[in-house]
Amino acid sequence: MKAAVFYGPKDLRIEERPVPAIADNEVLLQVKACAICGSDVRTYNFGAGNITEPVITGHEVSGVVAAVGKRVSGYRTGQRVTVAPAIPCGECPYCARGIQTMCDNLRSIGYQFHGGFAEYMVVPHTAVKAGCINTIPEDVSFDEATLAEPLACAINGQELLNVGMEDTVVIIGAGPLGCMHVDLARTRGARKIVLADMRERRLELARPFGADVLVNVEKENLEERVRQETGGCGADVVIVSAPSGKAQEQALLLAAKHGRISFFGGLPKTSPTISLNANLVHYKELFIMGAYGSKPRHNRMGLDLLASGKIHCSSLIGLTVPVERIVEAMGAVSEGTILKAVVRPDGQ
Amino acid sequence: MKAAVFYGPKDLRIEERPVPAIADNEVLLQVKACAICGSDVRTYNFGAGNITEPVITGHEVSGVVAAVGKRVSGYRTGQRVTVAPAIPCGECPYCARGIQTMCDNLRSIGYQFHGGFAEYMVVPHTAVKAGCINTIPEDVSFDEATLAEPLACAINGQELLNVGMEDTVVIIGAGPLGCMHVDLARTRGARKIVLADMRERRLELARPFGADVLVNVEKENLEERVRQETGGCGADVVIVSAPSGKAQEQALLLAAKHGRISFFGGLPKTSPTISLNANLVHYKELFIMGAYGSKPRHNRMGLDLLASGKIHCSSLIGLTVPVERIVEAMGAVSEGTILKAVVRPDGQ
Amino acid sequence: MKAAVFYGPKDLRIEERPVPAIADNEVLLQVKACAICGSDVRTYNFGAGNITEPVITGHEVSGVVAAVGKRVSGYRTGQRVTVAPAIPCGECPYCARGIQTMCDNLRSIGYQFHGGFAEYMVVPHTAVKAGCINTIPEDVSFDEATLAEPLACAINGQELLNVGMEDTVVIIGAGPLGCMHVDLARTRGARKIVLADMRERRLELARPFGADVLVNVEKENLEERVRQETGGCGADVVIVSAPSGKAQEQALLLAAKHGRISFFGGLPKTSPTISLNANLVHYKELFIMGAYGSKPRHNRMGLDLLASGKIHCSSLIGLTVPVERIVEAMGAVSEGTILKAVVRPDGQ
Amino acid sequence: MKAAVFYGPKDLRIEERPVPAIADNEVLLQVKACAICGSDVRTYNFGAGNITEPVITGHEVSGVVAAVGKRVSGYRTGQRVTVAPAIPCGECPYCARGIQTMCDNLRSIGYQFHGGFAEYMVVPHTAVKAGCINTIPEDVSFDEATLAEPLACAINGQELLNVGMEDTVVIIGAGPLGCMHVDLARTRGARKIVLADMRERRLELARPFGADVLVNVEKENLEERVRQETGGCGADVVIVSAPSGKAQEQALLLAAKHGRISFFGGLPKTSPTISLNANLVHYKELFIMGAYGSKPRHNRMGLDLLASGKIHCSSLIGLTVPVERIVEAMGAVSEGTILKAVVRPDGQ
Repeated sequence: MKAAVFYGPKDLRIEERPVPAIADNEVLLQVKACAICGSDVRTYNFGAGNITEPVITGHEVSGVVAAVGKRVSGYRTGQRVTVAPAIPCGECPYCARGIQTMCDNLRSIGYQFHGGFAEYMVVPHTAVKAGCINTIPEDVSFDEATLAEPLACAINGQELLNVGMEDTVVIIGAGPLGCMHVDLARTRGARKIVLADMRERRLELARPFGADVLVNVEKENLEERVRQETGGCGADVVIVSAPSGKAQEQALLLAAKHGRISFFGGLPKTSPTISLNANLVHYKELFIMGAYGSKPRHNRMGLDLLASGKIHCSSLIGLTVPVERIVEAMGAVSEGTILKAVVRPDGQ
Repeated sequence: MKAAVFYGPKDLRIEERPVPAIADNEVLLQVKACAICGSDVRTYNFGAGNITEPVITGHEVSGVVAAVGKRVSGYRTGQRVTVAPAIPCGECPYCARGIQTMCDNLRSIGYQFHGGFAEYMVVPHTAVKAGCINTIPEDVSFDEATLAEPLACAINGQELLNVGMEDTVVIIGAGPLGCMHVDLARTRGARKIVLADMRERRLELARPFGADVLVNVEKENLEERVRQETGGCGADVVIVSAPSGKAQEQALLLAAKHGRISFFGGLPKTSPTISLNANLVHYKELFIMGAYGSKPRHNRMGLDLLASGKIHCSSLIGLTVPVERIVEAMGAVSEGTILKAVVRPDGQ
Repeated sequence: MKAAVFYGPKDLRIEERPVPAIADNEVLLQVKACAICGSDVRTYNFGAGNITEPVITGHEVSGVVAAVGKRVSGYRTGQRVTVAPAIPCGECPYCARGIQTMCDNLRSIGYQFHGGFAEYMVVPHTAVKAGCINTIPEDVSFDEATLAEPLACAINGQELLNVGMEDTVVIIGAGPLGCMHVDLARTRGARKIVLADMRERRLELARPFGADVLVNVEKENLEERVRQETGGCGADVVIVSAPSGKAQEQALLLAAKHGRISFFGGLPKTSPTISLNANLVHYKELFIMGAYGSKPRHNRMGLDLLASGKIHCSSLIGLTVPVERIVEAMGAVSEGTILKAVVRPDGQ
Repeated sequence: MKAAVFYGPKDLRIEERPVPAIADNEVLLQVKACAICGSDVRTYNFGAGNITEPVITGHEVSGVVAAVGKRVSGYRTGQRVTVAPAIPCGECPYCARGIQTMCDNLRSIGYQFHGGFAEYMVVPHTAVKAGCINTIPEDVSFDEATLAEPLACAINGQELLNVGMEDTVVIIGAGPLGCMHVDLARTRGARKIVLADMRERRLELARPFGADVLVNVEKENLEERVRQETGGCGADVVIVSAPSGKAQEQALLLAAKHGRISFFGGLPKTSPTISLNANLVHYKELFIMGAYGSKPRHNRMGLDLLASGKIHCSSLIGLTVPVERIVEAMGAVSEGTILKAVVRPDGQ
């Protein structure tokens, strides 16, 4: 099979490898599509701490069940599925409380296990057991189904924030995840959605997602605009979906009293420190929270949403390439000419 | 009547004033005891932004109903009561949602209204309406009853944190509020309570409150100790009950994954900025929240607790003085030789 | 002014009355539309315990501010508004906790105060203070705005149930409230919505509301269908929006383990008793809850929703009549030929 | 080994059996103590639907690890432990959400697996994996440790009810579970606790648990007393910890508006139906909920509580017998001369 194997920063090799064998309790996936995540691009450029090279990366994956271990039940060859990549152990205290994102033994496809930038991928036993394999609904294509993974992360974030009907939601960052947050806040019935970015082109691409207000922060004062849109009160919810410490700091000024703020994305490892006015937290009784990855059931919810017709995020995919052109696709994502690219390992 | 009137920083004058008259919808309180809050000392030393001098400060107050306006029902002369000093309007969106601490029209006794460092005090109509007057239970003395107010603030903080039976709680700061947090966390059934301070004497005074672990952070590494006490997991809850940015920053390191952190106290207005590792919030899915003042019902809960015999905080009171000696008592609080001082305006 | 005055069961008289005077702290409403609630029909037919006749009934009201008492601020003559009819006191323990539906001193327009089946209506001081007057958004007509009131009741019910994205929701009863529940569950992002009724015509009228599944319980076994639609698990949420004890009893069979059930409507006062299998509650850890009326902020949310274009419920209005024809309109509602009728007191 | 084997109603035989062998992923427990649950007595008298005879019953078990399968890590021979008997699968949707009590594949020790009325007991692989084995804290005896299981059920119930500091809690039924509910409500800081029973002797035995009010419902009107104790409001929480439909019906009258009610115990299978005034649920916005068994982490919390010294429930144990006298001990429990009996299979 063809595979894109990561050997280290800027060293991604297209290799012929044997189709992997599976154990009795595993499942073999024929990968049909694997979308490129921003973190894949970061790994390609700079490496990642939690990876032992060489490894096949790629974790936003969909495909067809190619083989089923004889001790696995519930799956059949030919089944169209996605695989949630973050695999919880099911046994630690966090798993017992249903907080799989914080699993003490979390291991991930595309990191500790080979991922989806290859024609075939093994679904490890732990993933089978944890319910990571989900059937793709009929009307959802393989390409679209790859979006269930990032969508699941947004679902986790908004579940923690408990976004609801009374909320004016400000989303900072009109990248793929920001757009999904718009989709999701609308689905949850949010009263008003404000989407902010510094690049006009991004905002243009995001327009169809249906935010009530688009703000180009280079041209307009975001704090003032949010005050206007909220009768002076500030936003009930602020989601920082951009790797920007400045945006995180600003979130405290955008939020209403008792407002909820999500540091949805991580900051670069080299500069994770921000300067926070702690008295805003104290006097406004703010709630700042993180959101890291997703739970297996969030992936199922993502597929349900994709099938429901309620959301627009399949329009994010601006490029599909065979695995040989993966580096080129990563470049297009980096430059921002497209929001999302999908690798089809079988070249079809 | 005798009153301690604040004219500006370091200018607190003991004056003879007429007993104030009340309107038909107000209540007159004969003050029996008014405890000195840390903020009273700060106001005395540096002034406060939200005060128009001259004003009688003091907001941790108990006494006897001396007169009842003829349009007020439910109170009678001679009744032993406290008055919750933060008066919500009852009509704004925050009040409608039961979040009186964030009331858009909050006004406070001892700030916008004359307070308790005087023999008599008017309870404004809005306070009467908002349920700020609470009967003191039989077994609770006037001195003890003044503690209902700071206790109410701790109750508000732990209610937001939802401290419960599975929680290991770290409290930073063994001042009066820190001690009350110990009392309260124990009352709520917390699994283990760690109290930390940098002064040995404070920890000694706090010992009877029954924290499971006392840590002098000058002598012992707090992070290491918390790891030990939690099997390496970190604390479920961290309450920063000290005006220290460093302690707030450290809280993120002390907390377990999915841990809850309260920036319970404000930082000095001149240096409210802290350096936060935002990636800890993101990757550990932490929850940072503020807590500001209290709701009228928290004051009632405070009195109930004082009457219940479950808590120790009446031992905090180390000094009672007549109003003439208020400045001296403030000094004793500042120096930390005692934790809490009470002014008895009638000198008895 | 013309008014429909209720003197007792079956005795509703159209009278000429003077336009009422208002006190300094009240507001006068020129009624433009007042919808007929099922409870209005019940009162007309059987009387009501909490009414002192003669009284003008009608509580789903919209209109124009005709006069503003001189001690009232925030409103102006000519303003298009609705009035939330259930007036909380703002001072009792339930109000303090934000649970205005359970206010100890609740009084209602159309019951203890004269209501909207007249050309003019006084908005009592307590209603002004409690935020019961809400501006009608520009694109919402007076007729539509009357729906904010029943919609608010549905909002209260689903807020208590916390209906969300993972929920399959079964709604029993395709009357006006049942249809609003469909609208609302969809707005909150519910995964799948099943609407059941025993009358085909009702289901036909409800079709445009977009429930995923319509079930005529006379023709189809509801329990079986719900099992089918939920992979055998049962419904996450069951809303009984019909005055039927049998439906309430059945709800326990329809619900999944850990399912949430709302006894949304009251049963006839003469037969409020149902036979419940208590072991289903115990072994399935079910949650049964009530929902009674709404809070002022729910009315505001109702108007927001009507303006948002997300819901269809304005199609419910099948008849508009002048006040003289109110009894005829009540008949049409009773017979079920239409779902909702609106009285326009000024005959326009 | 000696074992009490259940062959059918009234047919419990003391047999010599070989010590069971364990698989590589199992653990062998030398049983030191196994308390008799009310359900054990019911099974002895009437059989149980979910049992295939012959089986060794008994599920409130403590002992010493006698052997550890070679693929099991984390346990060592000689370790003092309890085993939570309700074993969740860790893979179904309920387990994924942390609701192990509702596990789709729940199997239990003493029902589907041999239990603790024998000298040795196998801990099945699924129980090992699910964290059902918990170390007994040093100061807790084997007899006391058996109480972690029923205590865990009470913990589950009060967690669902969210019992807290503002709650007046009425507990109906002063059996072992009722007493544990008193212990637990006090631990969670409940404001006032009322315990009701119809037998004076039970109330006497329950007195040391420290309920604020004891009510003999044969001598005193419970509804009236609860009104008195709550200033006419009714109870915030009512826990029906007795197999009585009448008590469940009464709970709705005892509860305050917005009150929370737990149908904590099941009713006899032959008469599970109660007559409920559904309008009380509707108009008072009550919350009725069930509580079934416990989660593995609740057992850990139970042991923590037993070690904490905060609770009194070890005084419940009124009789310890060797396994040969198990039927006699069941009789004593049935007759109510003691609240709790413990079988020590090794006769020591």
